[in-house]
Amino acid sequence: MFKTEICELFGIEYPILLGGMVWIGRAALAAAVSEAGGLGLLAAGGMTLEEIEGDIREIKKHTKKPFGVNIPLMRPDAAEMIDVSISGGASVISTSAGSPKRFTGMIKDRGCRAIHVVSSVPFAEKSAEAGVDAIVAEGFEAGGHNGFDEIATMALLPQVVDAVDVPVIAAGGIADGRGFVAALSLGARGVQMGTRFVATHESAAHQNFKDAVLNVTDSGTTITGRAIGPTRGIKNRLTEKIHDAERRNVSREELLDLIGEGRSAMASVNGDVEEGSVYCGQIGGMIKEIKSVQDVIDDIIAEARDVVDSVKMLIAE
Amino acid sequence: MFKTEICELFGIEYPILLGGMVWIGRAALAAAVSEAGGLGLLAAGGMTLEEIEGDIREIKKHTKKPFGVNIPLMRPDAAEMIDVSISGGASVISTSAGSPKRFTGMIKDRGCRAIHVVSSVPFAEKSAEAGVDAIVAEGFEAGGHNGFDEIATMALLPQVVDAVDVPVIAAGGIADGRGFVAALSLGARGVQMGTRFVATHESAAHQNFKDAVLNVTDSGTTITGRAIGPTRGIKNRLTEKIHDAERRNVSREELLDLIGEGRSAMASVNGDVEEGSVYCGQIGGMIKEIKSVQDVIDDIIAEARDVVDSVKMLIAE
Repeated sequence: MFKTEICELFGIEYPILLGGMVWIGRAALAAAVSEAGGLGLLAAGGMTLEEIEGDIREIKKHTKKPFGVNIPLMRPDAAEMIDVSISGGASVISTSAGSPKRFTGMIKDRGCRAIHVVSSVPFAEKSAEAGVDAIVAEGFEAGGHNGFDEIATMALLPQVVDAVDVPVIAAGGIADGRGFVAALSLGARGVQMGTRFVATHESAAHQNFKDAVLNVTDSGTTITGRAIGPTRGIKNRLTEKIHDAERRNVSREELLDLIGEGRSAMASVNGDVEEGSVYCGQIGGMIKEIKSVQDVIDDIIAEARDVVDSVKMLIAE
Repeated sequence: MFKTEICELFGIEYPILLGGMVWIGRAALAAAVSEAGGLGLLAAGGMTLEEIEGDIREIKKHTKKPFGVNIPLMRPDAAEMIDVSISGGASVISTSAGSPKRFTGMIKDRGCRAIHVVSSVPFAEKSAEAGVDAIVAEGFEAGGHNGFDEIATMALLPQVVDAVDVPVIAAGGIADGRGFVAALSLGARGVQMGTRFVATHESAAHQNFKDAVLNVTDSGTTITGRAIGPTRGIKNRLTEKIHDAERRNVSREELLDLIGEGRSAMASVNGDVEEGSVYCGQIGGMIKEIKSVQDVIDDIIAEARDVVDSVKMLIAE
C-alpha cells in the first residue's frame, strides 16, 4: 500500500520518514520507525561520534530493517559523522542546514543514499545538481529549524516537484492520513514527520515536552530568531523573552544566548518547557494522544486509504 | 465531477470560489468565475455602494448563475453593502476581517448564504457559532490580508475541519489540480483561489501586476505589517521600505502611510508595482501563464481527476 519510488530507493515498506530531531530522535525512536516499516533517522546533531556509534549499535539490536542518520552540516565534524554512520550500518544519510555538495559524492560512493532537506526551490535545485537521491521539502509550518523564506508546504511542495527530477519528500504540517494523501497529491513521493513522532512512547522527549505537544493549539507555536536562524517552537517564557529582545534590537551575542542549542536540550532532555526551546510544528494542535510508533504508522496508512476512497467518490462519472 | 456539499449549498457546478480581491475581483472576473461553474465573488472592499450596484448589474448581464459579494467587515457601511448586494441579486455573502456575528442573521434571513474567512481554529469556532453556512480557512501562504497567527494551510485546514460542523473551504497555496485534491484530502469541501485568478484575461489587475505574478518565484513574496495588520505581497521597493520602517520601530502613523489601502490601488489599478502593494500568494511562483477563467477551472478539474487516479494507483491491493 502506497508504494512509491521512495520505498524502492530506501528498501522500506511505507514512504514515511522520521524527521531529524536532535535529542529526541535517539536509537529507540529511529529503530521503532524503521521496524514499523518507515525509515528511522537517528538525529545525530547533538551527539558525539562515540554516541552515534553507540546509538547505531542499539538500533541494530531492535531492527534488521534499513535506517538512516540525519546530520546537520553546520557541525565541523560532519564528514566524520557521515563516516561512522555508514561504517556502523546506516544506509541513508540525511543532511540539512548547509550545502550537500561536499558530501553527496562521499555518501553515494559508499553505496548509501543521500537525501537533503530544503526550504525553497533554489536549494532544491542545488541539491539535485549535487546528485542527491531524494529531496525533503520542508515548509514553514514545521517545528524546529525553519527556512528564511518562510514558504509553506502547500506552496513549496508542487514548486519543488516541478523544479527537480529526483523524488521529493514532504515535511511540515503532516501528522495523519489526510496530510499524507495531501502530500502525495501535491506530487510528493513520501512524507517526513517530526512532531507526530515526538508524541510516541518511543520518543526520547521528556514527558513535559510530550505533554506540551498534546496541549498546544493551532496558534500555539511561533517563530523566533527570524533574522539569524529561524526556529519554530511552542510559545513559552523563552519565546516571549526572545521576541522582546528582537523588538529591542539587541546584539547578535545577546540573542544567541537565548536561542543557542543548549535551549533545545533544556526542554527535550531536562523537561524545562518554559525556559527551553520546545520545538513543535503547527500541526501539533491536532495531536491529542501519545501512541506507539507502530500505531502512528498503521493509523496513517489506514486513514490514508479511506481518504483516497472518499476523494475518489467525488468523481461522479 | 467533484460535487461536494459546497456545490449544493451555492448551486454551483464546481466547488471553486474566487477569493475577494479588492480592485481586481470586479464584475468581469466575478461573472467569469460563476459562468465557468465556480462561485464568483465581487470584491466590494474598495467600492462605493453605487459601484457595487453597478458591478452587480454588469455581472448579471454576463451570467445567469449564482454569484456572491465579499465584504470586509472593517467597512463602517458593511450593513448597507450587504443590503445592496442582496437586493441586487447576490445569493452568497462572504465576509472577512471582523466578526461575522452581527451580520450572519441578516444575511440568512434574506435567503442568502453566509460564509466567513478565518485564519485560526478559534475564529472558525466563533463563525460556526454565529451560524455561517460555510467557513473559508485561509493559510499563511495566501496573498493579501493575512492572519496574525501565521498558520499555514496544511496545518490549519484539518484542525478547522475537526473543530466545526459546517463545510470548510480551503484558501492559501492553491492554484492547480494538485492543490485542489490536496485540499479535499485534508477535509475541505471546496477551494478558494485568489492569485491564480489574478493572472486571467478577465481579472481587472493592471498588466504590470499580472506580469509581476508571472515573474515571481517561490520566495518572492513577503509579509509586511506583521504587528498591526499583516499582508502578503511581492517583494518590491515598498516592502523594503516597510521592513526598514519596522526595524526602526517607527510610529504606527508612519507605518500606516506605507501600508494603507491606497497602496493596493496604486499597484492593482495604476500598475505601480514598485511603490504599490502587489498582493500575491506564495503559489504565485507556480503561475506561468495568463489564461481565461474557463481554462483555469477546466484545467484544475481535469488535472485533479488525474491526480486522484494516480494516488489511487498507489494503493496496491
